[in-house]
Amino acid sequence: MLSRKARCNCHGQDTSYFLGWQEYEKNPYDHVLNPTGIIQMGLAENQLSFDIIESWLARNQEATGFHKNGKSMFRELALFQDYRGLPAFKNELAKFASEIRGNKVRFDPNKIVLTAGSTSANEILMFCLAEPGEAFLIPTPYYPGFDRDLKWRTGVEIVPIHCSSSNGFRITKFALEQAYEQAQQLNLTVKGVLVTNPSNPLGTTMTRAEFNHLINFAIAKQIHIVSDEIYSGTVFDSPSFISITQAVVEKSLKNTEFWDQFHIVYSLSKDLGLPGFRVGLIYSNNEKILSAATKMSSFGLVSSQTQYLLSNLLGDKKFAKNYVRVNKERIRERKEMLVKGLLGMGIKCLESNSGLFCWVDMRRLLRAYTFEAEKELWEKLLFEVGVNVSPGYSCHCAEPGWFRICFGNMSKEALNVAMERVKKFVGSTESAHGHDHTQSIPRSKIRQFSKWIFQLSPYGREEER
Amino acid sequence: MLSRKARCNCHGQDTSYFLGWQEYEKNPYDHVLNPTGIIQMGLAENQLSFDIIESWLARNQEATGFHKNGKSMFRELALFQDYRGLPAFKNELAKFASEIRGNKVRFDPNKIVLTAGSTSANEILMFCLAEPGEAFLIPTPYYPGFDRDLKWRTGVEIVPIHCSSSNGFRITKFALEQAYEQAQQLNLTVKGVLVTNPSNPLGTTMTRAEFNHLINFAIAKQIHIVSDEIYSGTVFDSPSFISITQAVVEKSLKNTEFWDQFHIVYSLSKDLGLPGFRVGLIYSNNEKILSAATKMSSFGLVSSQTQYLLSNLLGDKKFAKNYVRVNKERIRERKEMLVKGLLGMGIKCLESNSGLFCWVDMRRLLRAYTFEAEKELWEKLLFEVGVNVSPGYSCHCAEPGWFRICFGNMSKEALNVAMERVKKFVGSTESAHGHDHTQSIPRSKIRQFSKWIFQLSPYGREEER
Repeated sequence: MLSRKARCNCHGQDTSYFLGWQEYEKNPYDHVLNPTGIIQMGLAENQLSFDIIESWLARNQEATGFHKNGKSMFRELALFQDYRGLPAFKNELAKFASEIRGNKVRFDPNKIVLTAGSTSANEILMFCLAEPGEAFLIPTPYYPGFDRDLKWRTGVEIVPIHCSSSNGFRITKFALEQAYEQAQQLNLTVKGVLVTNPSNPLGTTMTRAEFNHLINFAIAKQIHIVSDEIYSGTVFDSPSFISITQAVVEKSLKNTEFWDQFHIVYSLSKDLGLPGFRVGLIYSNNEKILSAATKMSSFGLVSSQTQYLLSNLLGDKKFAKNYVRVNKERIRERKEMLVKGLLGMGIKCLESNSGLFCWVDMRRLLRAYTFEAEKELWEKLLFEVGVNVSPGYSCHCAEPGWFRICFGNMSKEALNVAMERVKKFVGSTESAHGHDHTQSIPRSKIRQFSKWIFQLSPYGREEER
Repeated sequence: MLSRKARCNCHGQDTSYFLGWQEYEKNPYDHVLNPTGIIQMGLAENQLSFDIIESWLARNQEATGFHKNGKSMFRELALFQDYRGLPAFKNELAKFASEIRGNKVRFDPNKIVLTAGSTSANEILMFCLAEPGEAFLIPTPYYPGFDRDLKWRTGVEIVPIHCSSSNGFRITKFALEQAYEQAQQLNLTVKGVLVTNPSNPLGTTMTRAEFNHLINFAIAKQIHIVSDEIYSGTVFDSPSFISITQAVVEKSLKNTEFWDQFHIVYSLSKDLGLPGFRVGLIYSNNEKILSAATKMSSFGLVSSQTQYLLSNLLGDKKFAKNYVRVNKERIRERKEMLVKGLLGMGIKCLESNSGLFCWVDMRRLLRAYTFEAEKELWEKLLFEVGVNVSPGYSCHCAEPGWFRICFGNMSKEALNVAMERVKKFVGSTESAHGHDHTQSIPRSKIRQFSKWIFQLSPYGREEER
């Protein structure tokens, strides 16, 4: 008597990879209370700069207490639910989004649609841009939650753009065309490409060359681009971040037909470390999208209490500027700790400049060059070593042996303990077998992966991004 | 290049009835600043008991300031996004929902799914219970937003159960069967019935006789019942409120197959007057629904900041008990003011015991017994009299001449001014023409209405419920 959506498993929560979360929750590491517990490195949370926000909160108790200049704002906020959002909040959010991008791009508050996190923002865009059974192309590896967010309720399909380790998983013209062809073979109309920039799980920002391929491709095929820029405030190193708006302007496409065909998703979950507050947004130049998305945002409005607090927080320009600077510095430092630690064990990370994670090449630790071996390694890391990381398989990576390892959700001490544990494990593994699986993947294999790539989507909680 | 959902007008915001909102916003009444402005009586807001909440907030600044026993809870809340919700909040919400129902029904916190308001709760249930192109039956008149909430993104159809003024718009066996037949003629599979109890816009609670018809019908047809009980805390007079759970238990259906086939929607928007905070819930005994709905709630999670504040507020049992009692008393008093005022002009209201509105019979003021005449009257009330009320047409009522008039969002003074204005208007109208359109509607007419009943859904903002 239930719908197929309720009965099916296509949201992906119940896959075996959810096990990592369950195991961690059963036995979480604590420096003092549980020093042998599992260290959570599968969680892209930003816990590095809470002290800056907490100190602001202590100085600004009016904002938390529904007050403004000594007068209560409670009634007004309790009743507020204009789904266009609090104007003051959208103004400050627009300025913060610009600040995050080094003020190279200006955001117009009137082009912002507020949503309950980027989960909702991405789904709303799919509802607006595609019919059930039409497709979006997404470069692999990609955020596992997209299968739920983009496909589950909308009926939209995802066709992977297979990126390869041979060029650092960059998007190529060939890969784009190949994905488009695959969609056609599957009889799917392609409505757009969705990219994460900075990339989750790669931790890299898109290059001008990639933008060139992508934008030319979208114009040629007359399709949309959705750019999920949820990690844009984590870009801690050169090359600097290029937002899609900047790339489009640089290609002199402002106010051409294409100006209405790209859309940005953003959120405060990562840059500000506030996933619990559920604040996301869609940004678009397309009036029809803005209108339809605003109406759809009824299904996930942001609490007025939270809008009010954050309009005060972001409105403090001194706070915002300082936060962005210090936060990036702390992310960079933590990332270097991880990269150096792994390199000391002979494990390389993909060169990165952003994100709260590294994309780690563990191919040399695989028993064989297969996803079964990747799963085995992942299980060993979880159960024997006591670190929960995300296997590339869960991110739809077409090559076995890559793992996403997060570093923003833990203390330096915990990171050091994790490194020590992994080091010990690597030492024992390498003495046992010494494979080298760094060759790139044969193209015949990629086709076999396609089937599960269409089905997979591990994990279930919101915070796994 | 956009989807049909984005292009279509089926969400209903752009209908002419939205005009009422726009006109009010252009020229809002204010006792001192704009005494000739429009008085908003189309807004089912509960502004009657904010003083009780504000005084609690003043006494409990720890809760607004992210503190507990002097310790900051900020980090924990900022990161929290387990979509099962804060356990403490769900516990208190379950107890409050019971308190609201005079503790005749107990709610189990584990059977609660949190959603961003009841808008989201209702849509999620449709996604779980029906495929695109399948149908839910809904008694008319009904809340105009259902066309957006239930149909727009889900593709589910609504078939009206035509209730008639002849029996006070009560649900009958005949009307249920007739709607079911109509669905079959339209080749639509019926998956359930959705009722609002207390009814919006009628302001009445369901009787045992109605429950009997409804539950027997659902069992016979093997379909679901969704009971939207968002106004359950507004029941200010006898007969007392019967929640669907109570009705099912009284019919000895606990733990039968039917136990898994009814689902409750609730929210804090009306009873607590907090629509801006976006707190709704689904309550069900059906494990599969709970599991699927919990995953779908990712698209509209409740801000952790708001969950924390409200878990403290509702956790104060003395507050909760007092609030419920005083709030109901104030609603009753305000409703009597409206009813007496209208009766003094010879205008009758449907006898009611709940809600923040009355269902008002203005048939005698119609120029003719048509919806065109209803629209004319509505326009006169808006532009000439200066009160914005909701015509029955917007609630899919099959009989012209009924209006929903809200009273919970204004001061006694404003209500008195509105009554004076209407009185003057009625006096002048009745001297001009003296129709009596109180006969019930011919059955042939009902069929003609069906077409627009499928299309209509006025307004767009959240708060119109």
